[in-house]
Amino acid sequence: MVDDKKETYGEVKDVGNATNIAWHHSSVTKEDIHKRNNHKSCILWFTGLSGSGKSTLANAVNMRLFQRGMTNDNDESSTANVPLHSYILDGDNIRHGINQDLGFSDEDRVENIRRIGHIAALFLDAGMIVLTAFVSPFRSDREQVRQLVNRNGYQHEFIEVFCDASLDVCEKRDTKGLYDKARKGIIKDFTGISSPYEAPENPELIVNTGETQLDECVDKVVSYLEEKGLIPKVVG
Amino acid sequence: MVDDKKETYGEVKDVGNATNIAWHHSSVTKEDIHKRNNHKSCILWFTGLSGSGKSTLANAVNMRLFQRGMTNDNDESSTANVPLHSYILDGDNIRHGINQDLGFSDEDRVENIRRIGHIAALFLDAGMIVLTAFVSPFRSDREQVRQLVNRNGYQHEFIEVFCDASLDVCEKRDTKGLYDKARKGIIKDFTGISSPYEAPENPELIVNTGETQLDECVDKVVSYLEEKGLIPKVVG
Repeated sequence: MVDDKKETYGEVKDVGNATNIAWHHSSVTKEDIHKRNNHKSCILWFTGLSGSGKSTLANAVNMRLFQRGMTNDNDESSTANVPLHSYILDGDNIRHGINQDLGFSDEDRVENIRRIGHIAALFLDAGMIVLTAFVSPFRSDREQVRQLVNRNGYQHEFIEVFCDASLDVCEKRDTKGLYDKARKGIIKDFTGISSPYEAPENPELIVNTGETQLDECVDKVVSYLEEKGLIPKVVG
Repeated sequence: MVDDKKETYGEVKDVGNATNIAWHHSSVTKEDIHKRNNHKSCILWFTGLSGSGKSTLANAVNMRLFQRGMTNDNDESSTANVPLHSYILDGDNIRHGINQDLGFSDEDRVENIRRIGHIAALFLDAGMIVLTAFVSPFRSDREQVRQLVNRNGYQHEFIEVFCDASLDVCEKRDTKGLYDKARKGIIKDFTGISSPYEAPENPELIVNTGETQLDECVDKVVSYLEEKGLIPKVVG
């Protein structure tokens, strides 16, 4: 468990009033945390058009994971009550926080996703299941995050979830009136209307968020986590 | 590219093959996570000169918290085995990751700490105890992070830990040879030598990392967390 790869202050003798002050550097590793938590870490990267349901699905998956992990005293034989540690990164906490200095130019969009990728990687390192909900329309940006994660040598850690809803469905939903504004030219470079959306070519998961019930979509994502051994299966 | 806020898709009827697709948006709150985890979240912000022991102390505190949380089957009456969820942000994972685009100009130093503050706030939101180990020499930068955290209305969430070691001690340690290079002018604007360190005026904790054993320093930090009710006290 002890990782001395970092600096060691070693034996610094006769400093001030104390002698033999040994400050050894030890670290808790991701493996230690996985073992303690009884589940692994991963990034669920939800991508899709505005209105495709990324944020809603991510939140519903997060809620399901959280509720599954609540203690169930009536069923001690079940592993369903292993607490699952997950967190969502989305527009609310990113665009209004760390990325509030970024606009919507091409350069800023790339930087937006770059930072999100690195933040997601930190949560991964902390042993968490991190869910991200951003349009992230460009393949190259998503690929950059995948490479960043893969560099660490873990399998199944980057899970691209394509929220596949047709433009027609998303535009009909248009709960924020953004498509209407984009059609009228009030919003420029709007994904799907005046800026391209590059659908994933080989995503780990495709969820038909345009025509499927939310619960069914959540089932699909959670089952994937079980199948890959990232979270324990519910027993009984 | 539009970011999804907390919209509710509500009742989108007669879309595609499905009817009555209700996509309600629900979120797991920080309070939910605190209750589940049996401990609260906070930021332990270690600040001090290079060589003062910030990173070593932060890692030792993190290890202590982790080990305290390991299951202890022989002592079921103890609350010591509540798993404590903590994570360190330091130069290794920040400067080489999300902030690899930043140098050491005044502007970049401010941006470095701004981003770290926002990332720490995300971990806070995820219910974690986050430890940061950066020189962070300027009061205004640390104050900015404190304000950012306080905006959320929680008490005791930002804990400034002053790693108080004299320049003399730090320079004698000089494990990375940085002071030597700074004295020779090879490194410019080095904190303590050619750039100021503004010591905290009212830190939550002062730890004498220059003249105290590491274990004793760790005790002081962990006791503080217990006293403020952020983590359960060890019983028996």
